[in-house]
Formats: sequence, C-alpha cells, structure tokens
Amino acid sequence: MMQTPLLLTQMIERAEKYFPKKEIVSRTESGIQRFTYKQWGERTRRLASALHKLGVREGDKVGTLAWNHHRHLEAYFAIPCSGAVLHTINIRLSPQHISYIINHAGDKVLLIDSDILPLIDKIKDSIQGVEAFIVMTDGEVPKTSLENVYHYEELLSEGDPSFSFRTDLDENAPAGMCYTSATTGNPKGVIYSHRGIVLHAMALGLADTTGVCEKDTALPVVPMFHVNAWGLPFASVWFGTKQVLPGPYFTPGILAKLMQDEKVTITAGVPTIWLGLLNEIEQNEYDLSSLRSILCGGSAAPRGMIKAFEERFGIPFMHAYGMTETSPLAVIAASKSYHADLPADEKLDLKAKQGILVPGLEMKIIGKDGEVAWDGKEMGELALRGPWIASEYYQDERSQDAFRDGWLYTGDVVTIDEEGYIKIVDRTKDLIKSGGEWISSVDLENALMAHEDIFEAAVVAVPHEQWQERPVACVVLKESSRGKVTKEDILDFLKPQFAKWWIPDDVLFMSEIPKTSVGKFLKRTLRDQVQDKIKQV
Amino acid sequence: MMQTPLLLTQMIERAEKYFPKKEIVSRTESGIQRFTYKQWGERTRRLASALHKLGVREGDKVGTLAWNHHRHLEAYFAIPCSGAVLHTINIRLSPQHISYIINHAGDKVLLIDSDILPLIDKIKDSIQGVEAFIVMTDGEVPKTSLENVYHYEELLSEGDPSFSFRTDLDENAPAGMCYTSATTGNPKGVIYSHRGIVLHAMALGLADTTGVCEKDTALPVVPMFHVNAWGLPFASVWFGTKQVLPGPYFTPGILAKLMQDEKVTITAGVPTIWLGLLNEIEQNEYDLSSLRSILCGGSAAPRGMIKAFEERFGIPFMHAYGMTETSPLAVIAASKSYHADLPADEKLDLKAKQGILVPGLEMKIIGKDGEVAWDGKEMGELALRGPWIASEYYQDERSQDAFRDGWLYTGDVVTIDEEGYIKIVDRTKDLIKSGGEWISSVDLENALMAHEDIFEAAVVAVPHEQWQERPVACVVLKESSRGKVTKEDILDFLKPQFAKWWIPDDVLFMSEIPKTSVGKFLKRTLRDQVQDKIKQV
Repeated sequence: MMQTPLLLTQMIERAEKYFPKKEIVSRTESGIQRFTYKQWGERTRRLASALHKLGVREGDKVGTLAWNHHRHLEAYFAIPCSGAVLHTINIRLSPQHISYIINHAGDKVLLIDSDILPLIDKIKDSIQGVEAFIVMTDGEVPKTSLENVYHYEELLSEGDPSFSFRTDLDENAPAGMCYTSATTGNPKGVIYSHRGIVLHAMALGLADTTGVCEKDTALPVVPMFHVNAWGLPFASVWFGTKQVLPGPYFTPGILAKLMQDEKVTITAGVPTIWLGLLNEIEQNEYDLSSLRSILCGGSAAPRGMIKAFEERFGIPFMHAYGMTETSPLAVIAASKSYHADLPADEKLDLKAKQGILVPGLEMKIIGKDGEVAWDGKEMGELALRGPWIASEYYQDERSQDAFRDGWLYTGDVVTIDEEGYIKIVDRTKDLIKSGGEWISSVDLENALMAHEDIFEAAVVAVPHEQWQERPVACVVLKESSRGKVTKEDILDFLKPQFAKWWIPDDVLFMSEIPKTSVGKFLKRTLRDQVQDKIKQV
Repeated sequence: MMQTPLLLTQMIERAEKYFPKKEIVSRTESGIQRFTYKQWGERTRRLASALHKLGVREGDKVGTLAWNHHRHLEAYFAIPCSGAVLHTINIRLSPQHISYIINHAGDKVLLIDSDILPLIDKIKDSIQGVEAFIVMTDGEVPKTSLENVYHYEELLSEGDPSFSFRTDLDENAPAGMCYTSATTGNPKGVIYSHRGIVLHAMALGLADTTGVCEKDTALPVVPMFHVNAWGLPFASVWFGTKQVLPGPYFTPGILAKLMQDEKVTITAGVPTIWLGLLNEIEQNEYDLSSLRSILCGGSAAPRGMIKAFEERFGIPFMHAYGMTETSPLAVIAASKSYHADLPADEKLDLKAKQGILVPGLEMKIIGKDGEVAWDGKEMGELALRGPWIASEYYQDERSQDAFRDGWLYTGDVVTIDEEGYIKIVDRTKDLIKSGGEWISSVDLENALMAHEDIFEAAVVAVPHEQWQERPVACVVLKESSRGKVTKEDILDFLKPQFAKWWIPDDVLFMSEIPKTSVGKFLKRTLRDQVQDKIKQV
C-alpha cells in the first residue's frame, strides 16, 4: 500500500473540490454572515499566506483566542495545513493561566477576537515571544497598547487565495494543541497530530458513532477552544457538511432560532447548554424537526433532561465521553440493534450511561483487584489507548501520573455493564475509600439532589482512623426549606437507597458549594472547608 | 498522540468483547449454520493456533480457495491476526494461473473447500512449497492423491480457543494479498497492509459512503476471493454487523430468500448478480423491505436495472468503483444533499455514474493535454493515490506500467462532471484514438446495444493511415433479426447520437463476441479477428 500521510490538507482540498457550493454560516458581532466552501477555502489560503509572510514556519505555534466563527475555522486549517500548530486557548481561564499557556506553548502569533483583546492587553507584560497580534473583527481594531497588531481582514486582502498547502508533512507532525485545567497548578498541554485528527474525524463520520456526513448541518455549541469543538469542524470540512457557527455571547433563544432557521441536524455541547435550550423550547415555540442528534459531553446529562428531549420533543439525545487527552471522542451511547425492543425506561437507562467504546480505541478498567467485572457494579479507573489518545503532556513532568505503560489513565472511575456500556461514577480523586471498599461520591450526590428540599449537594471524603475515609455530605437547601430540614431527614432519605456503609457520617448544611469557572464542584476546596468545620466541632 | 498501530486484531477483539451475541449466518454444502461472534471468535483463535502448530509464522502466506462461508471468515482473521498473510485465490481462474499464483506467492498452507479439492489434485505436480492442505467441509475429506491433508474441523477441535493474537505488528506489515488478471500474461499480485485494510474498513463505515454499521445485516455476494469481498467482512466484524454468507452455488432464488429470511439490509455484488436477482423478484414474491442498499461494482450497471430496483421495488441501488489495486472502494455514487430536489430522471443519471471520490483518497484525471476539465465530456485516465491504494504488484516487473510518480494509473478512461462525479467511458487500451481525438468504445457499444435488433455489440479500433485509428463495430444480431438488418441501418441509427467522426467506419456482423471467463468482452482477441476479417476483404 502507498505510504501517503494522513494530513488535514486532504480535508480542505476535498471541501474545495467537491463541495464548493456548500455553506458556512457564521454569527459574529455584526450578525449572520455566509460563505461558500469555495470562498472560505480562498480566505483560508489567504490567511496561510499572510501567516507565512509574518514568518510563521513549520512547527511554529499560533495561538487563537476566539469564539466559534468562520475566521476561527479558517485558522483551524490555515495553520496546520501550512505545517504550523493550531493552539486554541481557552478564553475562560484566568489571565495568569492564559499567559502561562502562551509562554509555555511558545506562541509566535496570536489570533484574537476583538472583544478578547483587552484581556491580552492586560497580560501583555507577562507574555514573551509573541511577534504578532492579529485581531479578528468585522470592524476596526479596538484601541490597544499592544505592538505589532494586525487587522485580520487587511492581512487577508493582501494574501494569496491560491497559496499551496503542505502535502509532504509527516502524519505524526503536530497539527494542534490544547491545554486542559489541572487539579492543582498550571494547565497541561496536549498535542494533536495530523494522524490523530484525521483518524478521529473518520471515527466521527462512522454510521455507528455520530455519523457526521455531507447531508448534515452541524452546529458546534461546544467552543472551538475546547478540544477542537470535539473535532466537528474537521469532520464537517472533510465531509462537506454545512456548518453553523454560533459566535460570541449566544443565548438559548439565539441557538434555537439558528437551529430552526438553518435546519440544523446535529449539534454538540455540555449539559448546561441543553438545560438552557430545553427551558427555551418549553417556553417558546420552535420547529426543531430537522435535529437528528444532540451530542452531549463534558459531564453527565440528567436522565430527566434526556427524557424531555426525546419523549416530549422527539429530539434524539446522545451521550458521549471524552477529554482533552482523547481528542475527545472515546465512548458513545449508541444503542445496539437488539436494544430496539427494550421498554422505553430501559432505553433511557442506556442513554443515561456514557456508552460503548468507539471503534479504533482500546480500553481497560482497573479496580481494586485488577480489571473489573462487566457487571455494572464493580468500579475501576478507565484507561484508554489508541491513535487519537495523547501519549504525554507537552513538556510537563506531570505526564508520568496519567500516562503509564502505554495507557492513558483518565482519572475517571466507571462501571461497565454486561453489554460493555460505561457509566462514570466518580473521579479517582473524589472516590471515597472506606474500609477497602469504594464509595461513589457522584451516586450519593445524584441521590441527594433528587431530594425536593435540596438545591445542590456534594459528598467528600474525610479521613477516618478505622475506615481510612468516610463520606460527608455537604448540602445547600432551597431557600424556602432552610431551617425546616434536619440531618436525620436527609440520612433517612438516603438509607433505603444505599448499602449501610455508604451512608454519610455527617451532613453539613452550607450556603453554597465552591465551584470552578466552568461550574464544576471544587471538591478540593470543599474538602478543606469540611475538614475545618469538623475540627471546629 | 500514541503510536498504536492500525491492526486487524482490534477488529476481532471488538466483535468478541462488544458483540458476542451477534450472528454470522453461513450457508454451506449442508445447509444454513449459525454462529455467534463469541463462537466464531473462539473458532478463529483455534484456527490460528492450529496454523501455528503447522509451522505458520509471521510473514508466511496462507492461501484460501473457498466460497463465502464462516470458515473462510475465520481464515480472514486467524491468518493476519497472527502475523501471516491471507492470500485469497480466485477459484475461477484457469488451473495454470492458479498454480502460478500459489507458486509466485509462495503459499505455505492452503485452505481448500472440499468441492475445489479436485482442482488442486489435478495441479499438484505444478505447485511447490505447500506444506499442508486443509480441507474445509462439514463432512469427510474427499478422496485425494495429495499428501499432508488435514481436516479443518479436526484441526480446530485440537486448537486453542483463547490463542493470543498479535497486537505488536507494524501497521504496514502485509495482512492479505490477492491476484488480479492481466490483459496478457500471468495474474498480478497486490499486497494489502493492516493499515490499508483498517482505513478502508473505516471508509466503508462512513455515513457518507456505505455506512456499514452494527444495525446492518450484510450479505456479500461478491466472492471472498475477489478483493476481500470488497472489505465488507472486515468492516462487518469490526462494527459487530450481522453477516450472511451465501456459500457455494447459490441461485438468485437462494439469494432472495436469504435476504428475506435474514432481513438483510446491505448487499454487494456485480451487475450480473443484480440482473439475476431482478429477474427473480419480478417472477416471484419476496419481502425485501429490509434492504437499504444494493452495492454494485465490477462493471457499470445498466440504467434500466437501477431504475427497476429503485422505482419498481423501492430498493436503493448504489454504484461503486474500485479494483483489486484499490482495496477496492475508491469512488461511490452517493448523492449530495442538494441533489434531493432533482427530477427523478436526473437522479437516475447521477446513480448511473460511478460517483465521487471516497474521503481519504486523492484523484487526478489525465487527458490528452494534462488534467481534464470537470465538464462531463473531456476524457482522461483516472489515477488514484491514498493509504489503501497499492504501491506496486508483488515481485512483478509490470509494476512500472501502472505505478508511476506515486500514483496508480487505473487504465480506466473517465469523464468527470461539474459536481465531481466520475463516469467510466472506456479502458485506456480500448479507447480509439482518431485524428488526435478520443472516441469511447463503451459509449458506442451502449448505443448499439439499445438497438432493438442487436443482441450484443463491441467496438474496437483498427489502424488507419490518416487518422491513426478508426472505430469498427462488431454486432451480434438477435436470431429473429438476422439477415434483415444492414450495415447502413445500424450506422443511420448511430448518426443522430454522435459527432460525425465518432461513427464507425464499418459494421461487422458476427455470431458472438469473444469473452473472458467472467463475461467481459475480450477486446484483444476481437481486434485480431477484426484485423483478419478486414485483410480478407
């Protein structure tokens, strides 16, 4: 067989040649703009030639700080297809972390949305080595104290619309990179190779997974700075899929209207987005009959929400699981043919799990005593291996914690049922190890949050002399219920649902649970608070 | 990204782990047999261990001479997943070519269906180096003068059902090989690597191509000795697809009943098969409502047949194009989203073309003056490049004719329309070069065969002093029309349909057109006959 490399260049060339009429719909600060793949391809080549003129060469890192729009999609191909590395930066991180990331990656050029420019202005003294700042805007470049600032559209107007992309790169050459938050310390970088991105895009196109195809219209709500918007932009360009990019500061109403107007068939995002959308379509009427799949990842979607989309609105909902280190698609809640006969309730149970392994990857689940049984009960840490799984963190000593013996240890504790469907039950660091057994903090939290008086709840481990660790529940009551519910009420509520040794030793009432910038529980902080409270008692 | 190799081993392991209950339905000489993937996996491992005991090692060639059945499917994985090379042999070739192939490949072991054993018996003195003959049968091994003959089922009964497959092979290592007939001389061998087969199977799973998936039931009519049954067995195992293998000596009635009884969703074969099936379902009633796709390749399907399947029977029909050298899937007649609005007739025109390039490959079409225009008119030779395209013929000097500058020159002359859809118009060697212009023999033949008095017709080039070459039509009249139709009648029939210089210089009436063993016109022989006839005149 020929030794032709798997490169991103073939994706854009296919879109240009076979799908020049297909559309990219981009929502920017000034409204909806439309580009054909032909126009977009020319703009992308202009960008590549402009970057080349600015001195960007093979292996150089080019950072982006941008929302989901056509210019960001141009950067997605212009940078890697000319041999450089597309470094998408999470604009929601703290300024300190953003400057760490820019310096650690060694970004040579930054592409910045105009509304994000002030953030970079503020940290300019802490970042080194950036030779050019290119502002992506429909209008003028805002006032800035930065030097070497360029207007994206001006650069494009001077660019070459038939600039040649690289077809001679090694398929293992870096094409992209993305940093992921760490529990402690600075974010950790993951490098994506051309080979990894191409194979991952093929996996997204499989009829057995998300089946992204030319007949789709894809709307990635998941940010393009978050694991390449789950790879959707790459698959969509390759397959000639119409794309709808929702831009900055969208609301559930804006999303619903875009989906209706553009006849979106597939969309992807985190549960929070879908809760917002569900609320929106419950309040206002939209025709979302074109939607064939809502892809949901990032964290587990509540069963009730899945049920509402599927049964009330007839919109198929699909759980997926992955992380920055896995490109991200690793597990998907696709049903098997013989599941078609299951009662609705069991189908929903299946959909509430993360799903089965995607073709092309390998998996093992390591429990207390080696690989766990496929019984839906025994808990173990999920480890993954495959051609779109990272092998290390970029120049980071913390690699050795997660990457061992050729496997990525995900830090996620899961069970796996008889059919091979995985359910996430906890993070390894949040798991409570009591008397040699494992207790899932997530299972307890889900049970607590189903209590009618509870607004939110988290369960953490506290050290225990005899049992090593014991669970303690931290509960925020709904305002109307405060002072009316006791610790005993809550424990009595849990007792019928769990084994005796799972029941928390204590219930602490709090006014709020500390959270990360993306709304996840900050369990490390919570554990410290609980320790302090318990000491005070 | 991790450097995990793309190997066939991951396919069978996925089927065993995730789809142990799914079925393989196998029609053999003694009737229908059923195996779950779990049972089939154990049998496959038993076979691998048996081959190991017989001395088969990494890189060794193991030949198969067999129909489509479960044992052949076991060989499909047992051989490559233990590092050896699955060499499928076309049992329809001449005995001389079969012994050439066995010797040229250097097969160490042969797996032979019992009804094919007599053929090998006859050529045993001309084959060297085969150390063991394994007979695949439900019953006893037939009487044979061969030595070192083993009974497949006896070997399996002593085999190890948990034999370990190789996960440490180089992804570029050979996994399979297949010989293709040459115009002159011996067949030419193509080697398939693990990487090539895995990527090709992914391509088959794309929603944009054939979309083979777990929910399918696949029936490959195309023989497993013919380009790996177009890769369907590999994709089906990987995705956990139920397989129906039709075995030896099937009739259209047997196929139709299998499709009905097993609720087949996707099937694949050459036009001759589908003409037979169409005839069968026109005569007798079957419920084929489960069929979502008939894949058709090998040669062009008549438009009328496509129309009959689609419009009369509601069965979607899909053209595909490929060859032994291309694994084979290279081009597929998938429509684009905006084709949905075309009138039925234009949709049919589209379906009658071979289609557009499959994601993952590159293509160019070289005409008289370089790359051809995308106008559906200019003719050129199709050249292909990509990770599942062969790079050479196995130890064969003829490689340099077809493989040049990193491209495979297919020998097929095509046009390509504005949308990138390819239509095969001729073989390069059959194209008529008249006065510096190209004339498609196939176009003329199709026109002639639409004449109500003509049974079959072929058009060949004869040398011409002024024009280099000129077309001559060879026509076989229907019995009832013989003596009633003149040369002028036929030329008058053609004239309104073609440019003046396309009209054949002569029409020769013949009693039959010489054909190959698979029913294709033997144009080389025909050209010689025509030369002789013209000389005689």
